[in-house]
Amino acid sequence: MAGGPLEGVKVVDLTTVVVGPICTRTLADQGAAVIKVEAPGGDILRYLAAGSRTPAMSGKFINFNRNKRSIVLDIKQPEGLAALKRLIAEADVFVSNVRPAALARAGLDFEALRPLNPRLIHCGIVAFGTDGRYANRPAYDPIIQSLSGVAGTFERATGEPRFVPMVMTDHIAGLISAQAIGFALFRREKTGIGESIEVPMFESMASFVASEHLGAATFDPPEGPSGDARLLSPDYRPLPTQDGFITVRPNDNRQAFAFFDAIGRPELKADPRFKDPLARTRHAADYFTIQVETLKQKTTADWLEIFAKADVPAAGYNRIDDLLDDPHLNDVGFWQFDEHPTEGRIRRTRVPVTFRGGMRQETLPAPQLGMNTREILAEAGYAAEHIEAMLASGAAA
Amino acid sequence: MAGGPLEGVKVVDLTTVVVGPICTRTLADQGAAVIKVEAPGGDILRYLAAGSRTPAMSGKFINFNRNKRSIVLDIKQPEGLAALKRLIAEADVFVSNVRPAALARAGLDFEALRPLNPRLIHCGIVAFGTDGRYANRPAYDPIIQSLSGVAGTFERATGEPRFVPMVMTDHIAGLISAQAIGFALFRREKTGIGESIEVPMFESMASFVASEHLGAATFDPPEGPSGDARLLSPDYRPLPTQDGFITVRPNDNRQAFAFFDAIGRPELKADPRFKDPLARTRHAADYFTIQVETLKQKTTADWLEIFAKADVPAAGYNRIDDLLDDPHLNDVGFWQFDEHPTEGRIRRTRVPVTFRGGMRQETLPAPQLGMNTREILAEAGYAAEHIEAMLASGAAA
Repeated sequence: MAGGPLEGVKVVDLTTVVVGPICTRTLADQGAAVIKVEAPGGDILRYLAAGSRTPAMSGKFINFNRNKRSIVLDIKQPEGLAALKRLIAEADVFVSNVRPAALARAGLDFEALRPLNPRLIHCGIVAFGTDGRYANRPAYDPIIQSLSGVAGTFERATGEPRFVPMVMTDHIAGLISAQAIGFALFRREKTGIGESIEVPMFESMASFVASEHLGAATFDPPEGPSGDARLLSPDYRPLPTQDGFITVRPNDNRQAFAFFDAIGRPELKADPRFKDPLARTRHAADYFTIQVETLKQKTTADWLEIFAKADVPAAGYNRIDDLLDDPHLNDVGFWQFDEHPTEGRIRRTRVPVTFRGGMRQETLPAPQLGMNTREILAEAGYAAEHIEAMLASGAAA
Repeated sequence: MAGGPLEGVKVVDLTTVVVGPICTRTLADQGAAVIKVEAPGGDILRYLAAGSRTPAMSGKFINFNRNKRSIVLDIKQPEGLAALKRLIAEADVFVSNVRPAALARAGLDFEALRPLNPRLIHCGIVAFGTDGRYANRPAYDPIIQSLSGVAGTFERATGEPRFVPMVMTDHIAGLISAQAIGFALFRREKTGIGESIEVPMFESMASFVASEHLGAATFDPPEGPSGDARLLSPDYRPLPTQDGFITVRPNDNRQAFAFFDAIGRPELKADPRFKDPLARTRHAADYFTIQVETLKQKTTADWLEIFAKADVPAAGYNRIDDLLDDPHLNDVGFWQFDEHPTEGRIRRTRVPVTFRGGMRQETLPAPQLGMNTREILAEAGYAAEHIEAMLASGAAA
């Protein structure tokens, strides 16, 4: 049924919103069989974003939850919790983004589950590492953007702290979680034993920011201020042309000198401010000023033609809606159209990473809440009567 | 020598700047043995960023290249290319971010290398997928931010296209590449055969943005405009308090109603604009206005105490330099100090993701250019005289 490098891997997914769902969607896109376990109310992402045809099926939910099946279990009821444990007993991977204290109270921490399934890979995505004072604090993406320095990079660049207008830290920590699970699956093939992984969002993003911007403060004592000056320039942005925007990035000497020739300023090749990459970084403000002044003098199309001839890295600017018509994306079949069984015709993205050794073949539609409860319980060995009783009591739905 | 889930995995790394080096640093941090192959001039990241104690060892380079060894080979010389192929013949993974046409010209594409090493996992990180019209165009991170819609999200939020002041798309595509390599290593344990992976940066980031912001345009025809209105609000940012900034994120009903109580506006609990998550998304502007007006009336510390009591997700704001003193990061040993053999005392981040089954034990210092050329050639079976001849001819350095 699947294909893809993770074919045959069974994942039980007790996650909500974005950080967990993008982790498990990544696993699912690459062939894993993912069971999304939802509380009776369902993942809040079903309701949080605008844009849907039927209730609880927002576009954003659909995009983060394709290739999964949904079971509703009320794990506050013993029967619901027992069913979840039965699924975990047969799984390769259990992923949660429940706060660690609550997970342990439910008996779903690694130590409690190990006797049930010694081969289990237990991945806890947490806001803050359990060995520090913020452990168990509640958090969403902007909390982590605020604390990890992401918002701080904007204050350095523009004077105002801002968030990236995406749930970027959720999204990245989710990708890192899928990565860690892949590494653990690899080791388990050799050792045969399970694993407990903890992915702390705050530490992961602080590490991301520090790798970028520790800079001279990498040295102790520091050799200068933190921060990569090129990236923190106010003019580090798509720059206006006569009719739109353009991005040009002449980085090495060949590109920089070709750029100066292309804009009709060959004398700048001899300017000591721009003689090598480090000089251009130190004089980033001047380098950007030249770009700002020059680029507004022609149209985007004219500049793109000039820079293409000179092999200077350059590109136009796509608004979100422009992605729908981008010619390269259309060439590669980036946009696919599916007939969703309950939501009608929908647009989705092709999985961008390709594996020549085989990709997932069939795309499952993002599930309505509890759409697969009966079949999943039956696969787990529950008799039909038992399933009906659980549905009647609300332990499943 | 290593430990970590990727212990025993040999990686040959022909990458530069950030996208490739963060991929291979991630593999190295988790136990892989990474050989960084550099051209005689060295990775441009050595020079691009300010802040260093000795030339070609910038803080940014050090942070993206710990746990690797460096060999300098001039692959334009037949002897240099032959040495690279000898390393690849013994490797598990070969990663490059060379443009595909140039890689094929050097005989380093998957098809050319497969006879040499049928178990090889070949990972090509490319700016644009090879099956579309932008294939082989040069690109750096801001080019991809400009084309993929990342910059476009800022125009929707603030009216001005901007880049995230980090090499975010390089960084994310590198993390995705390490993830894909992990998945391929897992499959290879079962099949015994190698793999070719292509990670296209543009498509990967367009998919990232689309998952976040396709929204109502997920449906065909669209149910409304693209974009997640909450994230695209101009006030989606850390908000000013009496003495600084704070971030508050009351997301579900319990949190939102606790927030209204905490700010002394209990009547808002009955306001239809804020009655559920979808209503609050639809009235995001009003919801943010209430936050802006209220939060400026007390200090950050006062608010944090109030919100902690109410279990409303909230946090202060860290500038880049504040990370160095964050109490939670200190609790978890986030900052480590090493004596670098050539650069003196340096600060580095602990690997944030933890594997209970064992982590990498020893941290290798980021290498000076070609620091390990002799030992790596000797390990590959080159006789001492042969190594000296290669150094004399410049095939190695």
